[in-house]
Amino acid sequence: MILKKPALYTDLYELTMAQGYFLSGRHEQPATFDYFFRRLPFDGGYVIFAGLSDLLQMIQNFKFHVDEIDFLRKQGFKEEFLTYLKEFEFKPTIHSVKEGEVIFPNEPVLRVEGTIIEAQILETLLLNTLNFSSLIATKAARIKQAAGEKPVVDFGLRRSQGLGGLQASKAAIIGGFEGTSNVLAGMQNDIPVNGTMAHSWIQSFEDELTAFRTYAQYYPDSSILLVDTYSTLKHGVPNAIKVAKELEEKGHKLVGIRLDSGDLAYFARKSREMLDKAGLEYVKIAVSNQLDEYLIKSLFDQGAPIDLFGVGTKLVTAYDDPALDGVYKLSSINGKPTLKISENEEKVTLPDAKKVIRYFNQDGSFYSDGIALADEEIPDVIYHPYITHRSTNVGHLRSEELQHKVVENGQVVIEIPTLKESAQYAHSRLQKLNDEHKRFDNPHVYKVGLSNQLRELKIELLKKA
Amino acid sequence: MILKKPALYTDLYELTMAQGYFLSGRHEQPATFDYFFRRLPFDGGYVIFAGLSDLLQMIQNFKFHVDEIDFLRKQGFKEEFLTYLKEFEFKPTIHSVKEGEVIFPNEPVLRVEGTIIEAQILETLLLNTLNFSSLIATKAARIKQAAGEKPVVDFGLRRSQGLGGLQASKAAIIGGFEGTSNVLAGMQNDIPVNGTMAHSWIQSFEDELTAFRTYAQYYPDSSILLVDTYSTLKHGVPNAIKVAKELEEKGHKLVGIRLDSGDLAYFARKSREMLDKAGLEYVKIAVSNQLDEYLIKSLFDQGAPIDLFGVGTKLVTAYDDPALDGVYKLSSINGKPTLKISENEEKVTLPDAKKVIRYFNQDGSFYSDGIALADEEIPDVIYHPYITHRSTNVGHLRSEELQHKVVENGQVVIEIPTLKESAQYAHSRLQKLNDEHKRFDNPHVYKVGLSNQLRELKIELLKKA
Repeated sequence: MILKKPALYTDLYELTMAQGYFLSGRHEQPATFDYFFRRLPFDGGYVIFAGLSDLLQMIQNFKFHVDEIDFLRKQGFKEEFLTYLKEFEFKPTIHSVKEGEVIFPNEPVLRVEGTIIEAQILETLLLNTLNFSSLIATKAARIKQAAGEKPVVDFGLRRSQGLGGLQASKAAIIGGFEGTSNVLAGMQNDIPVNGTMAHSWIQSFEDELTAFRTYAQYYPDSSILLVDTYSTLKHGVPNAIKVAKELEEKGHKLVGIRLDSGDLAYFARKSREMLDKAGLEYVKIAVSNQLDEYLIKSLFDQGAPIDLFGVGTKLVTAYDDPALDGVYKLSSINGKPTLKISENEEKVTLPDAKKVIRYFNQDGSFYSDGIALADEEIPDVIYHPYITHRSTNVGHLRSEELQHKVVENGQVVIEIPTLKESAQYAHSRLQKLNDEHKRFDNPHVYKVGLSNQLRELKIELLKKA
Repeated sequence: MILKKPALYTDLYELTMAQGYFLSGRHEQPATFDYFFRRLPFDGGYVIFAGLSDLLQMIQNFKFHVDEIDFLRKQGFKEEFLTYLKEFEFKPTIHSVKEGEVIFPNEPVLRVEGTIIEAQILETLLLNTLNFSSLIATKAARIKQAAGEKPVVDFGLRRSQGLGGLQASKAAIIGGFEGTSNVLAGMQNDIPVNGTMAHSWIQSFEDELTAFRTYAQYYPDSSILLVDTYSTLKHGVPNAIKVAKELEEKGHKLVGIRLDSGDLAYFARKSREMLDKAGLEYVKIAVSNQLDEYLIKSLFDQGAPIDLFGVGTKLVTAYDDPALDGVYKLSSINGKPTLKISENEEKVTLPDAKKVIRYFNQDGSFYSDGIALADEEIPDVIYHPYITHRSTNVGHLRSEELQHKVVENGQVVIEIPTLKESAQYAHSRLQKLNDEHKRFDNPHVYKVGLSNQLRELKIELLKKA
């Protein structure tokens, strides 16, 4: 979901600073900002970039409406600035990597150029949108990695962080999920919607068998029966088998059973045995209940015969690491490159407009990335970001520039990809990322270097400051 | 923020079950559902109930629109059911504790009565709304508790879970926050909006002093200067002092400085010394950067002279425990009480329509809570939920029923409280909760007992099943 009026979905200081730029006559100064993150979430090896399509749609809606201007007036903003906002046309130019791209720390994956006002007031909206969607797309990709060929479906809406649930269900698809239980997200984004049944359905009948039978009567080709309301192995599975046999007689097939409690590995094995013994090899076993990538991996490690995973809370809230630390930093002002100093060397930002280059191994997999100034040639050598004697020759490798112009003077200049296209892109890129970077435990660090020109510009500016 | 069209903001299975109830002719059967949570978040001692006003507003908008019906048709729903949905009038009756109430595990704080269809299809929307708002109101209350008399302001929008940020900023106020940086949340809910300045403002000028001076020129009575861009003690604070003195000459006062990096206790102490030495005792010290209740407590333990806290990520995502496990369970169907069995005694639900009673100590503080059948007298003795020999006499204590009718036949029958009223209510109730339940480490468990009638009904139903 996107906001139709996104301009005030921002931190107040973006607007007080904007008024300051305006009143001091500096508002037409050109500026460049970079979006990047610093710390990999989940102790993982990569992030899937997501949220771009939502951001582009909101940029197209970016203007200040009368009611918004009135609210700002009450906050003490000055009349001359409000008049300016009323006629404000939002015309930045934005370069970005594709939605679904595999990205790494400190890479300026998105760059905003415009007047200092328009680049500044986009900050909070941009961070709110990209940080969360990228976080969830990444979590989803990890969960999908654990599930392998088995489908994973988002069941998280009841525990998602409010309306963020709509964005989570969308981002999960980019990360590789097959569907969602979230009907509105399905409607808004053309996502397959799925569901089984709740315990309340079973409880609302006198007995479990009647509950199963009634459901199967109305959904003869799409029933997944929840078998753990009374006793999974004593009642649930035997009753499901009865109903499956009755469906067979009428020329239909039970799709599956769902386990939602107890030891999922044990119950899956036992249920599989009982189903197979009844000649119901085709009936699938779906599981849910506090799943994440680690539990799914562990269930498979123990040979649990599971066919479908419903993943909720741990996915939609990114439970074990619920925020991506993406930031938005000024890199040039009024034609001059700038950087943000820090006591911490790793937090010194990179100056000026930049591009990100990906270098490929001969087999097509990712070798490393380079960051260079936007207007220089693709570098043949890349340098460690702050350990000066380390460098790598990459001149012989195939390379790609990852950023593309997506907005020019406020107009979206690409065809906004469909969710399916972004999911396919993420899938294709993840296949090119070598396994050692995808390991859950202590993944190998993917190299991101700087061009010599960029490195020298940074050192020069640090010396000046 | 609320959804204007909330009906499809739900899990698909609510609708497939609804169609099942309809097609089997059971859709007019009366049903009762309870909302409650099981596990206290943050290893804390209580939860602040929030999200009710959002929920009530969405209930007033609850209907199925033509585009939504069309979408359901494409999902394979049957024409007769779609016709029913088209004319569907949502008329449940709801009893709830007040927004801002202090609540405890397993208390049925909200009860929905209606036909099985209307009670069922409210589930996901209700859980999504109440779980998240209650989680954040609770986190905010903990942070406010650590900050004591010092104001706390929400700065979290850039890291919040997408649009959940709008609900987080609102819930934070219920928990005791004084304001937010989130302009749209401020506009929608009449919340004070606050802000300082970003590093980019400083960087956009040739030097820090000019940046401060320019800001102070346009905000002579509301400036909080960010002092850590270059060097907090060498440049930031001395420059802020210069500007404060210049403001004094013009009859204005600098509001404060903000520290956003480094050791906040050390820098706050040193900055305070420098400001005081310059005769600027009135200039406040604001801090931000990864704050939560533990860090704030720790800063105060070390005597840090801090006047204002800006809290972001840890608040708006409830970083250390990002989901409340609230559930929605059937307690009666077709006039008959029901419960959900579980291998785990603590997960057996409580049957039938119930009320929650709070008993008070003589000093007005909370003594314990009792859960009873909705139509019985307020009990004089309450029993441990499953250890049968434990009971407590409460007949001599003042008591209050916590639930009130908030919706009758689909119509909201209370005046929806303003955010300020809910915040005041939460504040007044927290004051009545004794300190031992508010401790961050290993808080004392607040007692919640059952009436004898409820306990016996539960045992009887368990025996039958």
